[in-house]
This record gives sequence, C-alpha cells and structure tokens, in this order.
Amino acid sequence: MEKRGKTPLYECLYRNIRDDILNGALRVGERLPSRRALAEHLRLSVVTVESAYRQLEAEGYVSVLARRGVFVNETNRPPAPPGSIPEAVAPDAAPRVWKLDLTDNSPDPSLIPAAALARLTRQALSENLEALFVPPPGPGLAVLREAIAHDLYEYRGMKVSPEQILVGAGAEYLYLLLPQLLGNSSLFALEDPGYLKIRHAYRNSGTRFVCLPLDSQGLNMDALRHSGANVAHISPAHHYPTGLVTPIGRRHTLLRWAEESGGWLVEDDYDSELRFTGRPIPTLQSIDHSGRVLYMNTFSQTISPSLRVGYLILPPSLLEVYRRELSFYACTVPTLEQYVLARFLESGQYEQHLSRLRKIYRARRAAVLDAFRANFSGGVTISEQGAGLHFLLRPRADGIRQRAERAGVRLRFLSDYAAAPTPEQHNTVVVHYAALPPERLAESMSLLAEIFC
Amino acid sequence: MEKRGKTPLYECLYRNIRDDILNGALRVGERLPSRRALAEHLRLSVVTVESAYRQLEAEGYVSVLARRGVFVNETNRPPAPPGSIPEAVAPDAAPRVWKLDLTDNSPDPSLIPAAALARLTRQALSENLEALFVPPPGPGLAVLREAIAHDLYEYRGMKVSPEQILVGAGAEYLYLLLPQLLGNSSLFALEDPGYLKIRHAYRNSGTRFVCLPLDSQGLNMDALRHSGANVAHISPAHHYPTGLVTPIGRRHTLLRWAEESGGWLVEDDYDSELRFTGRPIPTLQSIDHSGRVLYMNTFSQTISPSLRVGYLILPPSLLEVYRRELSFYACTVPTLEQYVLARFLESGQYEQHLSRLRKIYRARRAAVLDAFRANFSGGVTISEQGAGLHFLLRPRADGIRQRAERAGVRLRFLSDYAAAPTPEQHNTVVVHYAALPPERLAESMSLLAEIFC
Repeated sequence: MEKRGKTPLYECLYRNIRDDILNGALRVGERLPSRRALAEHLRLSVVTVESAYRQLEAEGYVSVLARRGVFVNETNRPPAPPGSIPEAVAPDAAPRVWKLDLTDNSPDPSLIPAAALARLTRQALSENLEALFVPPPGPGLAVLREAIAHDLYEYRGMKVSPEQILVGAGAEYLYLLLPQLLGNSSLFALEDPGYLKIRHAYRNSGTRFVCLPLDSQGLNMDALRHSGANVAHISPAHHYPTGLVTPIGRRHTLLRWAEESGGWLVEDDYDSELRFTGRPIPTLQSIDHSGRVLYMNTFSQTISPSLRVGYLILPPSLLEVYRRELSFYACTVPTLEQYVLARFLESGQYEQHLSRLRKIYRARRAAVLDAFRANFSGGVTISEQGAGLHFLLRPRADGIRQRAERAGVRLRFLSDYAAAPTPEQHNTVVVHYAALPPERLAESMSLLAEIFC
Repeated sequence: MEKRGKTPLYECLYRNIRDDILNGALRVGERLPSRRALAEHLRLSVVTVESAYRQLEAEGYVSVLARRGVFVNETNRPPAPPGSIPEAVAPDAAPRVWKLDLTDNSPDPSLIPAAALARLTRQALSENLEALFVPPPGPGLAVLREAIAHDLYEYRGMKVSPEQILVGAGAEYLYLLLPQLLGNSSLFALEDPGYLKIRHAYRNSGTRFVCLPLDSQGLNMDALRHSGANVAHISPAHHYPTGLVTPIGRRHTLLRWAEESGGWLVEDDYDSELRFTGRPIPTLQSIDHSGRVLYMNTFSQTISPSLRVGYLILPPSLLEVYRRELSFYACTVPTLEQYVLARFLESGQYEQHLSRLRKIYRARRAAVLDAFRANFSGGVTISEQGAGLHFLLRPRADGIRQRAERAGVRLRFLSDYAAAPTPEQHNTVVVHYAALPPERLAESMSLLAEIFC
C-alpha cells in the first residue's frame, strides 16, 4: 500500500485490488484472501478490508458468495485505448469586440429595473422563504399567471383565464413545446424574412416548416393556402425585422383561414409593449372567437433577457391537450423568479416601468432618426413604424457590409433574416437602436459616417 | 360620444369609428370627414381627431392618402360568430389529497438548504447586482461551469473541462436537447422499467425510442444490439426504479458497443450523490476513452427541484455540434440562480450539505427499513442497494393497489414504470421513503398496516 494522502485506507486497498483486477494481475474467477487473512497480512482492521470488498462488490469487480468467499468477476476490459491523446477541448470562442454593434435586439441593460427586482427578491426571501423552494406547478405559479392575466386585461384588453397561461423559460423553450401541442407532424409556416431563432429552433428540433413570403400586409395568404401548412407562426403586431403591422383586414382573413382549415395561428407578440404612438395594436388573440390562436410573449424585451421568462396563452382545446399530454413537464422557471415577477406585475411597477421605457425609447428613437437624417440626409432612406427597438435603413451606397466590417461596426441586413433574399434585402440594414443612447450618439454617428457617406 | 370614464378622448373616438366600420355603418371606400371638419363637429381638438385617425390607420381600418383624405378599408370581417358561448376554461384539476404519498421521488422539502441559498442570494444582490441581469452565455455562466467541473473532479474523480458543460432548466429540458445533439433520426434505447418522464418527453417531442428489458446487470446487450438503437439512455449508477447498479463488466461492454457501432451512451446520473455505503460508483463518463458518453445530472435531488438546474457533459465531438448548431439557444437558467449555485458549490457548502443529506437519509432509510421489517416481517420482502431515495417492496398479499387506494395511501408499482409489465412487477411497490421522516414513521406504519397485513 503506497502513500495515501487524505484518501481513506479502505479506498486505497479498494483501488489496489481494482487495478490488479483491471490489469490482469488478479484473474477472473480467482478467489481473494478472506477478510481476516488479508487484514492480518496487511495489518489493517477487518472492517477496512470488509469496506474495500464491499465497494468492489458494489461496482461489480468481485462477487461475494456466502460461505464460499470473494471471487474476481469478468470486467470485459477493452484493450488499452490507442496511444492517441484524447481530443482536446477548445475553449469557447471569444466573441469579436466591435466598436459599435447594431445587431442586438436586446434592451439597453442600463434600463433593466434591477434595483426594483432586487428589492422584491429580498422581500420574497424574508417573507416567503419556504414557499420559494416549493417546485412550481407545471404551467407556472398561480400568482404569476393571475398577475399576467390581470395585466393583459387592464392594458391590452385581452380576456384570458389564468388557467390558459403556460409559463416557460423563454421564447425558445416555448418554440420547442409548440409542435408537441399542435402535433409533431404539423407543418409550420414562418415569415420570410423573419426572426432567425424560430427557424433555427424548428430546424434543430426536427419540426417541419416552410418559409413564406410577406406582402404589404403580412404573411401572403395565397402562399399560406398553397403551402399545406396547418400552423402560421407570425408576429402581426410588429413584424421582425421589417416592422410591418398586419392590418385588421388581413387579421380577419388569417382567422378565417384558421377556422376553415382547422389551422392554428401562433401570435408571437415579442415587442408589442414598445409602441410609441397611440395605443397598442389589439391582438389577434382578442378577436379570435374560435379558439385557433396561441398567443406568446416574453419579458425579455421589457424587463431583461437574463430572466428567461415567457408565456403561452392556450385556447381551451389546446389547454386540454396540454393537461392530458404535457403536464408531466416540470415548469422550467424557478419558483423565486416567478414570485418576484408576479409581485413586480401586481404592484403596478411593471406598467410604470413600461411607461418609463416607452418614454426613454421614444426619445432615443427620435434622436437617432434625427441624427441619421441630419448626418446622412441624401445617403439613406429610413422605414419605421413607431414601434419596437429596430427600424430599417436603406443606404444609397453599395458595399456597406464590407465597409462596416472594416470600421468595426456590426450590422445585420434584411437578407440575413431571409431564406431567399432579394437584392434589395441585401442592401437594407436592420438598425437596433437600443445601442445608441444619447451619450454615445455623436461618437457613433462619426463612426457610421465612414460607412454611409 | 358616450361616457368615457378614464379612457382618453381620442381612444373613444377611435373606438366609435372602428365599431362603425366593423358593423357596416361606415362602408368600404367611404371617405371620413376631414380632421378639421370632424373636430369642429364634435367640438374636439384637431389633435384628438388626428390621434384617432392615426390609430385607425395603424391597425389598418383606414388608409390615409396624401391630399385626398381618409378612406375606410376592407376589414374582411367574418360573419358574426355563432351564438355559442365560448368554451369555458376548466380550472386546473385540484390534486387528490392523500394521507400518505410514497410516489414522490423529490427530496424532503425540510432538507432544502433554503437559509444558505437565501444568504448567498442576498449577497449576490448586494455585491454583484448588475452582473445578475446580464444574460448568461448559451452554455451557462463560466463561474458555474467551473464550479461544477471542480466539484466533479474533487468528489467524483471526473476530469471534465468547464467548456464541456451545458447548463439547462432541468433534466426534461436537457432531454429535449439530446436528439438535437445526436440527430433527430436517432433511435434511443430506454430502460424498461424506467423513469417515465424520459419516455414521455421522447414520445411528445417525436423522438424515436424503444424500451428494452433489463437483466441482472442493466440494459440487456442482446436486446440493445438487435434494436437498431444508436443511443442508450441509461442510469448505470442506480437504476430508477429498480436500484440496479450496473457492474464494471457490463459498463465496459456498453462502452465497447458504443465505440464499435458509433453509438452514444447517455449516462443519467440522477441520484448518485445519495449513496450511503462506501464511495460513489465511478461514472461511465470517467472510463470512456472514446468520447461516446454524454453525462447528465441535476441539482433537483440534492438541492431542490424548485431550482430547475441540470447540466450535460458533452464529449468533444458533440461540443463541436453544440457550438455549430445549437449555441443560438439562450441558456434557460436565469443568471441569478447560476451565480447563487456557483457560490454554493465554490464555497464548499454544497458538499457539506451533501454529507448532511447522506447522514440524515441513511438514518431515515435504516429506520424505515427496520420499521417495515418489524411491522410486516413475514408480509414483505425488501430489495435495496444502499442508495437513493427509494427501494423496492414485495408484499406477500395481493390486491395491494386497491387496498392502498381505499386507505388513502398513494403507491406506485414497478409495473407503472414498465412498458410491458410482468405479474411480479404488478405486485412490487416502489417506496419513496423521503416522505417518511422519524416523526411520521409510527403513524405511517399503522396506516400501512391496513394495506400490507
């Protein structure tokens, strides 16, 4: 027995015998010395030998046969692995550092209501500690689902029962649930151009989908009818990334398509809270009288993407499917987050925060649009709908992509969101302006001047 | 204009016009009065009318044509919905209240280290507030992945690079990622009997799987070879629910199968920390020299299922697949939870907690086994492996299921976990003893006496 450091004695003995079995010094079928004999020989206690033999037995190296002894088992050890060094693990790639990045659709981190959430978290920890460690019910905590239903009623005019709400760890997790709700043989129609992660999630999870063109009102109905799709996954309030708002006429046509064909509409309402003029566009869900709309939204744009909280609103027939087939899934959002978010909504702080966000982004957006117009007046055309955290910019010059790369500015083009991009889409920039706060605007404009002028 | 409560004036006007368009009082193509004319007529400001017209335009009810006026659009309104009342939403079913529930594999809630986690959460909120709202990288926070790798090295002898670790919202979320990593056409071999949620998750997500029988060493190799499966999803350390430990010989055979056939082993190590005699069984992952093992584990059994944190360890070749295909997925665990958990591990509190858990459960388990033997000596046979939160109980009597129902005791049988149950499985109870703390033991035994005696 070699030096053993802090390893217990029985473990050293176990390792020695194990290694002797693996390297063939002890043969299959061989009987090991009795506990007492080995203990005497090695000047160890019988208990130590007993523990080592038990561990060897538990792992299957030996069999202990009553009144007969301890015998070495066949370990089927593979021949020594080839001399090759095991594949090295490359470190996670370090992301390139950009002087300016206009591709990120996240909100400005400085506008996350961190202090308020921290206060509510501390409060929950002191008032409600035990409840925070009770696993949430599958569809989410009742208090959170009630708070969401109440908020949707008060501020969006949506009549939703808390029971219809299914809380999950962000939009992408919910994307993975959709085919499970609607049937794995479903064919999803996606908007082209459109939000890339939807396409990526469906492709990787083996969900069938087709990318369909938009016209001036949203998803092209002829294309939808001819596609054979039974689900249309759309963002009618403010299409990403074009900003298109689907008008009431097309909404009714989409609903009729769903009713008549037995299809489903997934209304992905990812940023409708950030509308800067007038009231929010009423949701498809609120004018659906046939239960064909699944509404989804998250708190990633309005609170923080670090929270990982989104939700689905199921029509009654799909609620039944969920309860029958999918309620075995544990809720993917920790109880603590759900409590804190419920309080943030209930206490009215969420809507106050949204008002503040809208005010700040409205001003920022106006300043950014003014700056673009003032600096590149002849050089760019802007298209925007008074909503969301992005707008489209059409530069007059060509070769913008290469120039941006060289200048250290990260841009994305409409073509990057399209399955079959048109030349025009190749030359249309999707500007995510949350990265252009007032204090960085002048500096950013000089950087962008290298590209657009 | 009727009474308006707290609704803004422009919104009342918008609603009136909208309703007139929808009910046909205003016809398609009709021109609305000019802003000025309507403002004068209704004694409103031009700004109010302008806002109402803008909202109608944004939603597509009207088109505003420069120098020509405001015209009513086609809304394609569907015929009035049939007089049927919308389907009512049934409330979530209230679970039956049992006098005793021995079916729950969760740990005893009173053993969750709530105070320690609360302390670490408060600390994180005061020391690191901003960082808590930065979205985590796709595979998880570096500090957490490092803490996990360190813990696995120190306490399980596993050499894992933090880069190989992928953090996700619990085991079931990770189940949904597995086919995406291994290919959606993969055929998974599952243990029968086995953990039901694995089967449910695969069935619902459209993943191909077969349930294969166990023999005395684990997954039957002949069945595996004949099944055509390319992935074996197994729990070799302590099979759920039989408690079977796969011996070293079978482990080597499984590894050789994976090497030779290009297959994969998913090692689901859901409760290996709770082993009450000797050291933990070494993992398959640690003797895999060919990169064919995906190891997975969670903190649900050891800390709390309310946390929703699990992780996968990928072999280098699958890490490449993850980075290339799946890294667009946002991490499903909130940043705050990841920080807190990282500190719990780093500070050594996790392993202290595990030692305490093992001590308490070891004693509870012994007391429960003694009580069963003392109370039902002739009536039951017990089979257990000194590990985990469950053991098997074979009553001599028949009709146990019905008797338990009547007595208000919730039991699950081995047959409940089997795709093709044998008669013996129908009469073997899986006892989850975490629900039998010392203070409830005597009372529970008298309840169980009604069933087993």
